[in-house]
Amino acid sequence: MSPSTSDASSSRIAHHCPTCTCSSSSNPTSSNAGSTTHPSPTHQTNSPNPNPNPNPKPKPPFTASLNRKPNHTHILLITTGSVASIKAPLIISELLSYPNVAVQVLTTKPALTFFDREDVEVRLGVNVWSDEDEWDPNYTLSSPILHIELRRWADTVLIAPCSANTLAKIASGICDNTVTSLLRALSPSTPTFVFPAMNTLMYEHPLTKEHLRIVQEVVGYTVVGPIGKKLACGDVGMGAMTEWRDIVGLVVEKFGLVKKAGEGEGKGEQTVLPDNPKVEVS
Amino acid sequence: MSPSTSDASSSRIAHHCPTCTCSSSSNPTSSNAGSTTHPSPTHQTNSPNPNPNPNPKPKPPFTASLNRKPNHTHILLITTGSVASIKAPLIISELLSYPNVAVQVLTTKPALTFFDREDVEVRLGVNVWSDEDEWDPNYTLSSPILHIELRRWADTVLIAPCSANTLAKIASGICDNTVTSLLRALSPSTPTFVFPAMNTLMYEHPLTKEHLRIVQEVVGYTVVGPIGKKLACGDVGMGAMTEWRDIVGLVVEKFGLVKKAGEGEGKGEQTVLPDNPKVEVS
Amino acid sequence: MSPSTSDASSSRIAHHCPTCTCSSSSNPTSSNAGSTTHPSPTHQTNSPNPNPNPNPKPKPPFTASLNRKPNHTHILLITTGSVASIKAPLIISELLSYPNVAVQVLTTKPALTFFDREDVEVRLGVNVWSDEDEWDPNYTLSSPILHIELRRWADTVLIAPCSANTLAKIASGICDNTVTSLLRALSPSTPTFVFPAMNTLMYEHPLTKEHLRIVQEVVGYTVVGPIGKKLACGDVGMGAMTEWRDIVGLVVEKFGLVKKAGEGEGKGEQTVLPDNPKVEVS
Repeated sequence: MSPSTSDASSSRIAHHCPTCTCSSSSNPTSSNAGSTTHPSPTHQTNSPNPNPNPNPKPKPPFTASLNRKPNHTHILLITTGSVASIKAPLIISELLSYPNVAVQVLTTKPALTFFDREDVEVRLGVNVWSDEDEWDPNYTLSSPILHIELRRWADTVLIAPCSANTLAKIASGICDNTVTSLLRALSPSTPTFVFPAMNTLMYEHPLTKEHLRIVQEVVGYTVVGPIGKKLACGDVGMGAMTEWRDIVGLVVEKFGLVKKAGEGEGKGEQTVLPDNPKVEVS
Repeated sequence: MSPSTSDASSSRIAHHCPTCTCSSSSNPTSSNAGSTTHPSPTHQTNSPNPNPNPNPKPKPPFTASLNRKPNHTHILLITTGSVASIKAPLIISELLSYPNVAVQVLTTKPALTFFDREDVEVRLGVNVWSDEDEWDPNYTLSSPILHIELRRWADTVLIAPCSANTLAKIASGICDNTVTSLLRALSPSTPTFVFPAMNTLMYEHPLTKEHLRIVQEVVGYTVVGPIGKKLACGDVGMGAMTEWRDIVGLVVEKFGLVKKAGEGEGKGEQTVLPDNPKVEVS
Repeated sequence: MSPSTSDASSSRIAHHCPTCTCSSSSNPTSSNAGSTTHPSPTHQTNSPNPNPNPNPKPKPPFTASLNRKPNHTHILLITTGSVASIKAPLIISELLSYPNVAVQVLTTKPALTFFDREDVEVRLGVNVWSDEDEWDPNYTLSSPILHIELRRWADTVLIAPCSANTLAKIASGICDNTVTSLLRALSPSTPTFVFPAMNTLMYEHPLTKEHLRIVQEVVGYTVVGPIGKKLACGDVGMGAMTEWRDIVGLVVEKFGLVKKAGEGEGKGEQTVLPDNPKVEVS
């Protein structure tokens, strides 16, 4: 499937209202302190362990107004339960190699198996938000709502990777976690890019095509990829996420980002997570 | 959107069979004793804490046959994860101001953030049922099944408020909690009213219109609202739940309820929860 | 509704790739040792208790290559949250009465209320897999992935029973647990049979017909049943699972299974679980 070129813009008025309403079956657990290493970031459908990569420490509430920086491009990266989430640090690092770029990450729980939350937060200095951060036990009517503040903050949203399950939820309007709540409440004027990544047979499942059609034609997101590759199992097939460099390149072109003089490309490769082309993941 | 006037009645025969079958991913937790206060009933998508407003104490099993009262109108109020669930006590109190009215409440877990379960149960004397009540650990083949008994009991069902997520689940036939299981197993001859309440952008999401169409035209429920309002955030937009007085008024008209002589309207306002028109919730 | 005769085969190429990707909200809990008895296998929508029929003991990782037996028919039985899951031991026992048949069971959590996992594993010697088995805490890139290995292993898949909720998930492409992940990643060349079982009113819900159409015409599964019966509640209506003998008979015919000389039919009835025709379950 060719990348869509449909534009996510819309003439509808975007009301930014903090009172939004969707129910959820998510069951936030208390966060544990301490680092969690990910020696084997790989395939996942269900959460491989009850508490993967726990939130290292509670973050202060996030508000768009305090975190919007003048003359910056504000990029929200959403990661979901595909092994391609292993590329998140590479994408973030490369984006940050451009001046005047700010990044926030919002993730589903399964995606946390594939990259080191603390590494992103400490080494790269980028917040990684998840369901556990959505609600403060001391919440009051005036407290900021995470998924509303993040969508107010974002100039663009990248769902990279978008798993088969999250794609199905978006296409059916289900909003039972922070990621899908944000997407359901997102202004149609915010350019939103979907980078599917899934097993080849999942991608070839007849419903995938219909989900992609709805996400593009009805919801108005731009779908890019997936691509064909030799996958980890040795098979060749469609389903791999668009190359992370191409994802960054898309944002660079869209927002006209320019590196400082003397700074070459490829800074992202300095990250500690490997980008071994011999072991591709979908 | 104008209220639908479609009738939920159907010529199909309603088999009241206790053996129904849908799976669920819900994970009932043990109920805690004690009162839980709700100082800040407000917006919510995900459950704000792991165990909001726990079931104060186990209730004896509910059966329709033992709880149907002669010459009474039996009203099942379903509350879901929208801040408009704050109005539940007002709706209940006003309904009970009419003679020969009986009320039961069935709620999703997130909705319990927005009203005080114990207040409703103790002060108003109305049962509030949730997923935790569905299955008795000592269940036997002859035990009553909560969502079957409640739908047998109900003369009418009010989903007030109906969140974006619950609306999506109804439209897709997902039945993964007690609320959606009851709705899936509900007789089409039971008048069922949906009062959507959601953030303006969620309401304007293109899938909402399709969900509302399915819920009305295919499933046969009557959708009333939402309405436009100045919302808590200062914006004006569609998405607020129909005024609670109008919800009660709809039931009053439908079932020809008449107050006792000398009893005026507005008893509901004696409830301790505020209905401040200056801080509206969607 | 008449059983479909549509064939699940397809000309599409089946890539067997272990890197698949869907997110999940499932929350695997640690397994407890010990037997769990099921004195009252019956109706269920939500999980009746937090940890029904826990995994008796961790099983070694499953791989298709080590478990495929020469000249055997490999049958994957999927059980979901319908009381008809009580018939699983009968189906398994009868299938195993044929030579050269191998059986694996994959189950949703709610289905475990209706049959004794340990009985199936110990007495019948058949593995019962569930969400808890999907991910090894010591998972590495080379570890087998349960739902990929099971679909590689299977010559045919029986979803018996298929609950209303699982049916809705299949029809919408949601893949938030091991069962729906396997189905989403299943090769279209694997004959897959759906045996719906649900409450009569759930079956008569207008969305059921559309779900069954999608599952047959779009996804390509073969739907058999449900059937009409006098149900446990005394009502007569559609919704019961096809008789377990007919389910086995369908497999016998499809794969040309022949019993050894001198071995009669009905061995399945020697199982300790009753198949009382007077108390039918849907």
